[in-house]
Amino acid sequence: MKKYNLTIVVFLFSQFLFHAQKLRSPDGKLEMTFTITEGIPFYNLKYKGDLVIEDSKLGLRIFDDTYVHFASEQEKATDDNWDLNRGFIKLSDKRDEKNEEWQPILGEKKSYINHYNELSVTLHQSSSDRNMMIRFRLFNDGLGFRYEFPYQRNFEHFRIKEEDTEFDFPSDMKAWWIVADYDSQEYQPQTTLISEIPGRWNKAYDKHSSQTLVKNAVQSPLLLKKEGKNTLYVNVAEAAVLNYPASHLEVDAEHYKFKTHLTPNKLGIKAYLQTPSVTPWRTIIVSDQAAQILDSKLLFNLNEPTKYKDTSYIHPTKYMGVWWEMIIGKSKWAYSTNTSVNLNQTDFSKLSPNGKHGANNEKVKEYIDFASENGFDGLLIEGWNIGWEDWMGHDKEFVFDFITPYPDFDITMLNEYAHSKGIKLIMHHETSASATNYERWADEAFRLMNKYGYESVKTGYVGDIIPRSEHHYSQWTVNHYYRIAEKAHEYKIMVNSHESIRPGGESRTYPNWITAEAARGTEHEAFKGNNPDQQTILPFTRWIGGSMDYTPGIFQTKLDYYFPGDKRFVKTTLAKQLALYVVMYMPLQMAADLPENYRKHMDAFQFIKDVAADWDDTKILSAEPGDYVVTARKAKGTENWFVGGITDENKRDYTVDFSFLNKGQKYEATIYEDRKDADYINNPQNYNIYKKEITSKSKINFKMARSGGFAISIKPEN
Amino acid sequence: MKKYNLTIVVFLFSQFLFHAQKLRSPDGKLEMTFTITEGIPFYNLKYKGDLVIEDSKLGLRIFDDTYVHFASEQEKATDDNWDLNRGFIKLSDKRDEKNEEWQPILGEKKSYINHYNELSVTLHQSSSDRNMMIRFRLFNDGLGFRYEFPYQRNFEHFRIKEEDTEFDFPSDMKAWWIVADYDSQEYQPQTTLISEIPGRWNKAYDKHSSQTLVKNAVQSPLLLKKEGKNTLYVNVAEAAVLNYPASHLEVDAEHYKFKTHLTPNKLGIKAYLQTPSVTPWRTIIVSDQAAQILDSKLLFNLNEPTKYKDTSYIHPTKYMGVWWEMIIGKSKWAYSTNTSVNLNQTDFSKLSPNGKHGANNEKVKEYIDFASENGFDGLLIEGWNIGWEDWMGHDKEFVFDFITPYPDFDITMLNEYAHSKGIKLIMHHETSASATNYERWADEAFRLMNKYGYESVKTGYVGDIIPRSEHHYSQWTVNHYYRIAEKAHEYKIMVNSHESIRPGGESRTYPNWITAEAARGTEHEAFKGNNPDQQTILPFTRWIGGSMDYTPGIFQTKLDYYFPGDKRFVKTTLAKQLALYVVMYMPLQMAADLPENYRKHMDAFQFIKDVAADWDDTKILSAEPGDYVVTARKAKGTENWFVGGITDENKRDYTVDFSFLNKGQKYEATIYEDRKDADYINNPQNYNIYKKEITSKSKINFKMARSGGFAISIKPEN
Repeated sequence: MKKYNLTIVVFLFSQFLFHAQKLRSPDGKLEMTFTITEGIPFYNLKYKGDLVIEDSKLGLRIFDDTYVHFASEQEKATDDNWDLNRGFIKLSDKRDEKNEEWQPILGEKKSYINHYNELSVTLHQSSSDRNMMIRFRLFNDGLGFRYEFPYQRNFEHFRIKEEDTEFDFPSDMKAWWIVADYDSQEYQPQTTLISEIPGRWNKAYDKHSSQTLVKNAVQSPLLLKKEGKNTLYVNVAEAAVLNYPASHLEVDAEHYKFKTHLTPNKLGIKAYLQTPSVTPWRTIIVSDQAAQILDSKLLFNLNEPTKYKDTSYIHPTKYMGVWWEMIIGKSKWAYSTNTSVNLNQTDFSKLSPNGKHGANNEKVKEYIDFASENGFDGLLIEGWNIGWEDWMGHDKEFVFDFITPYPDFDITMLNEYAHSKGIKLIMHHETSASATNYERWADEAFRLMNKYGYESVKTGYVGDIIPRSEHHYSQWTVNHYYRIAEKAHEYKIMVNSHESIRPGGESRTYPNWITAEAARGTEHEAFKGNNPDQQTILPFTRWIGGSMDYTPGIFQTKLDYYFPGDKRFVKTTLAKQLALYVVMYMPLQMAADLPENYRKHMDAFQFIKDVAADWDDTKILSAEPGDYVVTARKAKGTENWFVGGITDENKRDYTVDFSFLNKGQKYEATIYEDRKDADYINNPQNYNIYKKEITSKSKINFKMARSGGFAISIKPEN
Repeated sequence: MKKYNLTIVVFLFSQFLFHAQKLRSPDGKLEMTFTITEGIPFYNLKYKGDLVIEDSKLGLRIFDDTYVHFASEQEKATDDNWDLNRGFIKLSDKRDEKNEEWQPILGEKKSYINHYNELSVTLHQSSSDRNMMIRFRLFNDGLGFRYEFPYQRNFEHFRIKEEDTEFDFPSDMKAWWIVADYDSQEYQPQTTLISEIPGRWNKAYDKHSSQTLVKNAVQSPLLLKKEGKNTLYVNVAEAAVLNYPASHLEVDAEHYKFKTHLTPNKLGIKAYLQTPSVTPWRTIIVSDQAAQILDSKLLFNLNEPTKYKDTSYIHPTKYMGVWWEMIIGKSKWAYSTNTSVNLNQTDFSKLSPNGKHGANNEKVKEYIDFASENGFDGLLIEGWNIGWEDWMGHDKEFVFDFITPYPDFDITMLNEYAHSKGIKLIMHHETSASATNYERWADEAFRLMNKYGYESVKTGYVGDIIPRSEHHYSQWTVNHYYRIAEKAHEYKIMVNSHESIRPGGESRTYPNWITAEAARGTEHEAFKGNNPDQQTILPFTRWIGGSMDYTPGIFQTKLDYYFPGDKRFVKTTLAKQLALYVVMYMPLQMAADLPENYRKHMDAFQFIKDVAADWDDTKILSAEPGDYVVTARKAKGTENWFVGGITDENKRDYTVDFSFLNKGQKYEATIYEDRKDADYINNPQNYNIYKKEITSKSKINFKMARSGGFAISIKPEN
């Protein structure tokens, strides 16, 4: 080895003269420069010649694992010298490129374009005699790069102490962010300058059932905007987060700089790795048009194509649920008056019913009837299984068995009834974050689903994770989520995962993971509330890596309807709720309100019945984060279009230009809009519906109410 | 509630006058006194009128769990006021008694006697408005007591911070102990006074593959001896350690006092409990005869009878193993020269064999041949499955799959070959302490065993436990072990568990858990060595709660036989190795040495072939911990007896009195003894074998060499 090293060193002296490596995007607008300065690797990024990211450090700190000799001695590797963040020389580099089109199984467009130029640089660290590679892919819409650790005899097993990738911005920027947390993503989005983040941080969170905040750090995807002359939008995120924790971004507010902060386990270890291995991609999407940020498929492109052989069972699903009535407190998940049960011992048939159990035969049948009459595919039922009496907050490992219904939930009868009406019941696997328990029961639970014809499952991870060493976004738990996705695939089941890791395009590889929560959804309207601008921000952040189960469709926005005097309300007009079905990409699409509320507005409900959930094309007509989003989508396999527009807490005029329609074709547009005087606080259910013939030359002006919107359903005329 | 409390308080004032509760053993020799002094519960224990344990505190510290309200608020219960160690008044007490005989499925006697008087005291703590019960059972051979937490509406879920049960001895005593550790029990036994424990503690451990030492604490079972006039032996242990961590004993050397110290998880929580629940039993076995300590079945009596319906598959097993040659370094568990593999990716058939893989077809067939020729039931093969290249010390979760053999291990052929010769292969499931991974694979692994006809499995937990929050003896991991026992039972498989929790009589409830390691076994002779007195101590400590897989039978004690110049040796004469088969109760009984070594001593090997592994009766003829043990046992269903005697590092004369034999019956005894000049260092293989006719009136004197012994096989003559 000594001799070999010497050869390398001599060889490299000839290269020691500094020269930067440049990489340009296919369209030439983006340019990335890689350099090594005093042994430290740096990158920067330019857009149309201007720096987007200044020279920013790359590197990781690691420790070798503890070498143990069988039952006799153990020897801790000293931590010094292993860090992969200094003392590098460049050993070699390689360039590559790709330009391909691929078809998502479910998606916003029929096909996505994966077009990039690639530079991979192999670095050598002489102190450890180890190599590390950094692979950069520059697309027209942004940059992705990751660290790669090739197998080396002296670099086999190791642990990540921290990843120190930096994102150093040249100037202060507007930032849309949520506080960093190892266990929750359900925070209210904040809008401040980068320099203002620390000052706002302490006021930017409420209490959650499991939370481990990271002081002065924010979550990704993070959206930034340079305002003024050369307006620029930047999204910082990560893709293909597999066998690795989710990362957060520490803020250096003085220097407008961010740095990765990985989610550790409770022993402080961030990842246990073995060579060969790679990190997730760090991604920077850049555009001078906000709409183009929404259009980017960069995160998906950086994920591997699926290896699943059969994906025929994966399909878009429109569903209702016995759900909102529990969220608002009208019904209960639990069946009995008990507050403590033991799944091994309690005879649930002998408990006193609390009289408010939502998942009872009669109610479920009513929901089935309504969903069936209105053309839905599925019905979610929460609280169907024993264990909800003490499911939360007790660190209880054997909290659910996922197979035993409550006495008033006749699983055979209800599935038969549903199937006779063309409805598939949607299974609910709340795990109470007891992941070890869920893994024990998963096979039996999925077999039960197969037996009764369930096609999809909503999983949930409310509370602190068991194993107790883990966080929601630590490496072990990330692996758990994909283990469950693969297990579900064995049983041909689609997954909608709540309280799990935010997606980074992994649904390309795990296409049965069709949606996830991983942000503050509609349910929070019944807790501490969502701000009216929230839905105009989420598409720029949460949605960048995959769809969200936002559960829109609340028509009865005021909760004093149920509970006189209750001040809680959903901060939206009814028309805006309709628009969300287009603005938010949701292949698993919920109509979340109660049948009784839809029955009062069947004219408006028609839009939810009509709107598609899978798309051949998507056009972001206009968008500005925190202000408004207007989106047009073409339904899969048809010539039908749907348009949705939403605004924040401000009234807003917007004129839809229908030039995206086929020229010469006449269409019938059904328009759902805020009526004059509609207002999310004072008059939310005030809407107007009318039909109009339009062509590609048409323009229609909409006057959106405060937190209002509009929705349009467009069909070609014969 | 307020009103009700008042009633209790008034009622209790009438009882407030101090009066002690006394409980006597059925034979009257032991007397336990329970008192409450200034709200604190105490017990003491007398033997024949003298205090064995002085007034000692009872109680636990707890915290309530964190109450979490759904996704909106969380509220930590303040920790004060919940501790169950003060402010008590007695609410009620109840007495009971039992005298029954029960038959162990495998055991040292045909039946065990469970005879006790019981006192259960219900205590009320007004500050928390909660009740706790303490249940005492006083047997002729000792005391057991535990805490019980009845269901109460205001006491449902809680966590144990610490259990503070005290054992306060009136005077300094000799103690046989090992250092306390959350992850290893494989320490050299120490013999000191209680007062000397802290001084010795730092010198009492070597390094282990996973260890978390507890400063100045010792493990239980702990043996104590009061020397001098009223000699007394006391064993302090625990029974029925289920859904609870194993406990250690903190030492107050100045006051000759011990206090329980529970194994925490890495968050510092000792147990997560839900009412109704109970703690393990704290046990104190007392006798003025050392032999009677060995005879006690108190720990088993305190466990529940098994609920298994079918136990027909549980049987004693004599086995050999492809094992010792790996332990000493002659062969390897791993197949290839690689030091890093990935079970999802590595093609093991393409790796370079290291040429020393033990579990290869040819070698296994040779072992099968030898085991079959000599009447064994089973053959353990370690290193049969892929993954051993980097199995240890890397915190690797997916380290084994338990189903894929190495390329040179033909599982079908070898099982067929073994079965054709009357041998069952014994499965090996080394988990590398990755318990989560083992749980994932357990069903498939046990199905594979059923498919190929394996009847038993040796499990192993070398290294740090995964989930990484856990220790080997923390509550989660304890639950894991019994989960595996129950899973194995589903597949009618017997378990021999290594590096797991030490047994506390739980094999009564889980009879397929037929043996365990949980102490320093023969393998350590190939590491740092065992002291010659170790085997005279273990029956008093490790064996009190269940059998150990000590793996005796090493005839070639000097490792320089394999590796010239190697100083390691097994510290025993050959005759002592034979005696261990009687002194040590082992229903799963290994002949651990290589066939080639037995072939050189087939005359001595005959004893190992003949000796039984399950018994109708056991007589401890004489014993003194740390010095010698002489045991006679009657083989199950026969009139054959076996006697074994062992000594420590000192030569010792012992005369066996055969009065335990049937009167009037003539027997043929085959005697295996140290020959003159035998010596564990200088001449270990120097033995003498002869036959002799004996009756119940016979006496035979034995001269045991240093670390020597004798073994006798006795058959009635016709």
